[in-house]
Amino acid sequence: MKYQALNTILLAALLWTVPGKAQEKHHTFVDPMIGSQGLGRIFIGPSYPFGMVKPSPDCGTAPNSGWLPEPVAVTGFSQLHVSGTGGGPKYGNIQVMPFTGALDSQEQSSMRENETVKLGYYSVLLKKNQVKTEITTADKAAFYKFSYPAAAQKSLKIDAGFFLGEQPVPDAREAQQFVGSEIELVSPTEIRGYSRIRAGWNNGRAYTVYFYAVLDQPVTSYTSWKGQKLFPNVAVQFDSNEKTGLLLGIGGSATQLNMKIGISFLSSLKAKANITQEIPDWDFNQVLTGLQNKWEELLRRIEIDPKASTTQQQLFYTGLYHTMLMPVNRTGENPMWTNDQPYYDDFYTLWDTFRTSNPLITLISPKREVEIVNALIDIYKHDGYLPDGRSGNANGRTQGGSHGEVLIADAFVKKLEGIDYELGLEAMLKDATVPPGGNEEQEGRGGLTEYNRLGYVPFSVVRSGNRTVDYAYNDYNIATVAKGLKRQKIYDRFIRQSANWRNLWRDDYTHEGSKGFILPKNAEGKWLDTIPYGNSEIQHPTYIYTPLTRETPWYACHWCGFFYEGTSWEYSFSIPHEIPALIQKSGGNAAFRKRLDTFFDKKFYNVANEPSFLTPTLYHWIGRPDLSSERIRQIIGASYNTSRNGLPGNDDSGAMSSWLAFHMIGLYPNAGQSYYLINSPLLRQTVFHQENGKDFKVTANGLSEKNVYIKSARLNGKVFNQAWIEHEDILNGGELVLEMDAKPSAWGTRILPPLSLKP
Amino acid sequence: MKYQALNTILLAALLWTVPGKAQEKHHTFVDPMIGSQGLGRIFIGPSYPFGMVKPSPDCGTAPNSGWLPEPVAVTGFSQLHVSGTGGGPKYGNIQVMPFTGALDSQEQSSMRENETVKLGYYSVLLKKNQVKTEITTADKAAFYKFSYPAAAQKSLKIDAGFFLGEQPVPDAREAQQFVGSEIELVSPTEIRGYSRIRAGWNNGRAYTVYFYAVLDQPVTSYTSWKGQKLFPNVAVQFDSNEKTGLLLGIGGSATQLNMKIGISFLSSLKAKANITQEIPDWDFNQVLTGLQNKWEELLRRIEIDPKASTTQQQLFYTGLYHTMLMPVNRTGENPMWTNDQPYYDDFYTLWDTFRTSNPLITLISPKREVEIVNALIDIYKHDGYLPDGRSGNANGRTQGGSHGEVLIADAFVKKLEGIDYELGLEAMLKDATVPPGGNEEQEGRGGLTEYNRLGYVPFSVVRSGNRTVDYAYNDYNIATVAKGLKRQKIYDRFIRQSANWRNLWRDDYTHEGSKGFILPKNAEGKWLDTIPYGNSEIQHPTYIYTPLTRETPWYACHWCGFFYEGTSWEYSFSIPHEIPALIQKSGGNAAFRKRLDTFFDKKFYNVANEPSFLTPTLYHWIGRPDLSSERIRQIIGASYNTSRNGLPGNDDSGAMSSWLAFHMIGLYPNAGQSYYLINSPLLRQTVFHQENGKDFKVTANGLSEKNVYIKSARLNGKVFNQAWIEHEDILNGGELVLEMDAKPSAWGTRILPPLSLKP
Repeated sequence: MKYQALNTILLAALLWTVPGKAQEKHHTFVDPMIGSQGLGRIFIGPSYPFGMVKPSPDCGTAPNSGWLPEPVAVTGFSQLHVSGTGGGPKYGNIQVMPFTGALDSQEQSSMRENETVKLGYYSVLLKKNQVKTEITTADKAAFYKFSYPAAAQKSLKIDAGFFLGEQPVPDAREAQQFVGSEIELVSPTEIRGYSRIRAGWNNGRAYTVYFYAVLDQPVTSYTSWKGQKLFPNVAVQFDSNEKTGLLLGIGGSATQLNMKIGISFLSSLKAKANITQEIPDWDFNQVLTGLQNKWEELLRRIEIDPKASTTQQQLFYTGLYHTMLMPVNRTGENPMWTNDQPYYDDFYTLWDTFRTSNPLITLISPKREVEIVNALIDIYKHDGYLPDGRSGNANGRTQGGSHGEVLIADAFVKKLEGIDYELGLEAMLKDATVPPGGNEEQEGRGGLTEYNRLGYVPFSVVRSGNRTVDYAYNDYNIATVAKGLKRQKIYDRFIRQSANWRNLWRDDYTHEGSKGFILPKNAEGKWLDTIPYGNSEIQHPTYIYTPLTRETPWYACHWCGFFYEGTSWEYSFSIPHEIPALIQKSGGNAAFRKRLDTFFDKKFYNVANEPSFLTPTLYHWIGRPDLSSERIRQIIGASYNTSRNGLPGNDDSGAMSSWLAFHMIGLYPNAGQSYYLINSPLLRQTVFHQENGKDFKVTANGLSEKNVYIKSARLNGKVFNQAWIEHEDILNGGELVLEMDAKPSAWGTRILPPLSLKP
Repeated sequence: MKYQALNTILLAALLWTVPGKAQEKHHTFVDPMIGSQGLGRIFIGPSYPFGMVKPSPDCGTAPNSGWLPEPVAVTGFSQLHVSGTGGGPKYGNIQVMPFTGALDSQEQSSMRENETVKLGYYSVLLKKNQVKTEITTADKAAFYKFSYPAAAQKSLKIDAGFFLGEQPVPDAREAQQFVGSEIELVSPTEIRGYSRIRAGWNNGRAYTVYFYAVLDQPVTSYTSWKGQKLFPNVAVQFDSNEKTGLLLGIGGSATQLNMKIGISFLSSLKAKANITQEIPDWDFNQVLTGLQNKWEELLRRIEIDPKASTTQQQLFYTGLYHTMLMPVNRTGENPMWTNDQPYYDDFYTLWDTFRTSNPLITLISPKREVEIVNALIDIYKHDGYLPDGRSGNANGRTQGGSHGEVLIADAFVKKLEGIDYELGLEAMLKDATVPPGGNEEQEGRGGLTEYNRLGYVPFSVVRSGNRTVDYAYNDYNIATVAKGLKRQKIYDRFIRQSANWRNLWRDDYTHEGSKGFILPKNAEGKWLDTIPYGNSEIQHPTYIYTPLTRETPWYACHWCGFFYEGTSWEYSFSIPHEIPALIQKSGGNAAFRKRLDTFFDKKFYNVANEPSFLTPTLYHWIGRPDLSSERIRQIIGASYNTSRNGLPGNDDSGAMSSWLAFHMIGLYPNAGQSYYLINSPLLRQTVFHQENGKDFKVTANGLSEKNVYIKSARLNGKVFNQAWIEHEDILNGGELVLEMDAKPSAWGTRILPPLSLKP
């Protein structure tokens, strides 16, 4: 109770103070530092929406996003990063670093002063040499402005060999590994080269990041390096599988040096063309304004109550911003095949994003989501499988299901146009029928043979718990599309399989007052109370498995447990396609409510990860949307804020942030279904300015610190008694008006959210 | 009989006329045109041993080796080719073409005059413009000499977009597909760029061929192109996923233009470094001599009777030459990972080369074979599976077994040092225990799950016949290494599995007087006399399958039959690891002899492909090595000669050629076993100058047109009554003397070739 009271106070502080300025542009509310510290791992540098180039300071090789707070020194500024990821880092390529004085050392790290971060803008004063560095970026080319102390020798390091995630043992699991690099001083103002790196979190094949840098002041002296050796006056270091770079002395009396750096996955000349195309001039502010406009155009599509507090505006628009940092649009930059389809990379990962990130993109820009889905299908066509995770042009890793299925089904039920759903179905069927073979962490469904034979993944296969639960859900997605395309036989098979989660439901198992859990079972059908680990054929060690066992104990391998990053308490709620059946299996409405209450009150709920994203709203299905809303408010109050620690877990390409954004509006998607659940909004009003030209408005009349319950609702003026709304209703434009009250009501308690298919 | 008599005459003509000149260097006997026409598909251009750069004329985009005889026009000269392959082409990248006059057309094809081909040297007079083109090459850089007519405007086309195997439907099966290209006139004498291509026969991922060209005369005018459009005076075309190239006008009054062109898989600067390293000067003959010396050093290691006929010398040394064109040594040119292991590509394919090409390399240069095996194991380590086929840095296709196993086992039994056999065993076990998943044509063992469950691959899996036979053999290879490494449990499993070919042996099936054949069986254990094809669920079409059915009928898919490129008559002999058991299953010695006689006399034997390579020597196992030798002589006489049509099938990286070379010596390997069968040589003497410094000599005393049977033998002076010899006996140095006679003898009839393991 104390915990709840505190949350309410925090939430109130968060939402009802400091009214925002009505005239402010939306993008000014974005604070890229939210979630940058702690678990959030947010990328803090400038980036276009879905932008390819993501420059950021790198504080050593360890941090996933490059950045860390002081007192860690900055090594330099590299051009590619990911946002919100866990596990081993990816990218961190082509690092630049200004310094002063002699060209005699590759080591130019510095502490920081006056670090300033705004949407599209980063600046810092490097303590060591007092060089101010400012960065903004276009889509595929970045702009750097270096301001040196007067009279200092202006110097610049360009490191083609740097990358994040380097390990003492080069092929350590999840470490990025160096393959090759090259650098060339082409003219006094031009440098080109590349960096070739492999592996990293997804253990992907080698990718090559090409660059072309243009300076507005001439190089007058230079020293290149290969490995540890410096080569004064040598302008070129070709690729011989060693790290290369350049130390440049800049001439002229100006204290300022501007640099444009283009990036490409095709070639350094293409990187140069990207500069020409995107940054023809030497105007830093022009680039910055261009970036701001790109964001503004997207952010303004969901316009919230202009009188919402600054905190609300910051939380909301930063949430939208986080959601559109990734995946990355690399159309025209695919080094593997050529056609007229869009190409996106850095699906990091669908396991994280299918629940809220992609549904939010669908609402902001259905055209964008169509591109993303088409890119996925095109990857299937050329690489053989839909990705679940993908980065550096390579599929991997799969943590559980094959969630490309969810995106395709979600697009299908929301009637997104311009997708070849027949080909999409083919791609989904590949996942569901063809085992991915040797490296099951790369793509497809690990343990598929067993799943298809037994109806569940037996414990001998790693991550058998969430694989079973996810595959059943993904099978439901397949059934959804198959039915729509009138493929009866496929539908019959997969709607049947979508009930497979039941095969790991241990009916008679009671824990903390609740009965029935998803629990490990071996191939012979025996439930396992203790589970084996390790490879010893003599000792056969085991550990006791309970519904609260999180992942694996420290002495067993991280990826070898029953569930990936979750407990049975969490995953036993994670049946988004069969919630009524789940309630029944759990003992009916009363038992299910008790189960949910236990889950939240005893803090079995893990706010920091995606598997439980839908769980706070499950009260809807027992006719208690008021309880869903209460839980959501508690969670937000306790775990979200505008600080650098303001995100409770890895943001995972905007997953955490989009979860928050949806709940602030008062809508919440169940991916693969055509509806949104309605919860008490945190915002008094939200207007969707849709691509089809129609506005849809959600209004919460009377919403206040006390009035947090929905008393009644009207859709386009008509009484609306259900706690969910169809996507089509939003598309058609109009207004959903919620009347708020201080106490729970009977609204939304009788018409329960539908199941689009019945297994 | 008429057939046999004719063969004998042809063979006599081939072997016993025109004695060769004793002093001639070995490499002068190499005729690169042997096997260039018809099925041989031999690459005719210059190449280092295992050399990366393989320049050749391209006669359109269709031919696998680039070259075709007149009257097909030459499109240009590209820098990479393969030799002896079937299926869709690979490579054909970075094409150059001299011409005269205006820079106004990409089309500069020409007919040919005076085409001259020698080892390391190609020249031709282009009819259209009377430009003579001469080519020689180093390992990673080629040298071109163009001689223009006096007073003509010297022009040169460099096409970065050309490739072999282009199809109207870009992603047609086995077609190479364009991804991107780039070209840049860097200075008046330097051009750089690349070509990026994917797919082709092995459906591999994209590979990039970088080049750097240096001219000895300056460019004075230029027109570049992108797609179909010409750009006069534009020196650079960056990669925008279109084909690019340059038309260059060359200045100066000289009629001769020299060009060095470096190739790299890392970058164009690495390609430049390859020139600097390998061809520092402008001396065509120096490069040519360097190449000849490289070959001479290898060819002289097997020195045949200097009095052998020119025809014999040409056949033998060209055979050795063909065997060392591929795989290609790309150490230092691996764009995917960096370490200290050798890197080889263009295993095209192990299915073809394990029987004779690799064993011959082991005899010529065990160090080279160690590098090749280590490269295979390193590919396993980084790409996840040993290749069976590999080209363009990508595994694929697998036609049947996982024959990396044979190479590792063959190296093991021949005690090759410097290989991590523990890691090799791990790689082999991956093949044998982890299904390769979605694309079973890429690597590993297709149908493995079924094979491991049933003990055979059922007909529902494509190519179930040769897969079963090959997997059993490959399992024997695993057992071989496991036993040597004292891994008893692994040995037990795989020696048992090596008998799995029996599970498809249909004992009671009689055909053409022989009983027992490898025949299709479904998963339920039912033998299939008719086999289904196509996907129709209504018509269920079938065709009748007999032991003479070759591949599949035209109306069924090529890769979907019971055997890949072979009949049951052929594959029912193809049990190299269990020949005594095969004889027993076939009804004993008499029945087996009858079966062999039927096979050859009725022309069921297919000289054009590898599965029957061992079959002519199977008479050894019924105590009749004389009959083996008779069959071998018949086959050689009928199918091998020094003409352009002198090879009976796709040479497949020297497979056909090395088969011939072994039989000319009188030895023949059974890959994975430590011995060689002894047959009547075609050469009076062969000396192996071995890397260990010890010579081993095979002498056939009295060999003549009539004396073609071995009467007796002595090894190092001691009576030697067995028709096989251990690899160790060769390693130890010494002499095997065979006394030849005009009639068969009792020699070699009683001690039969051993089985190293007994299932």
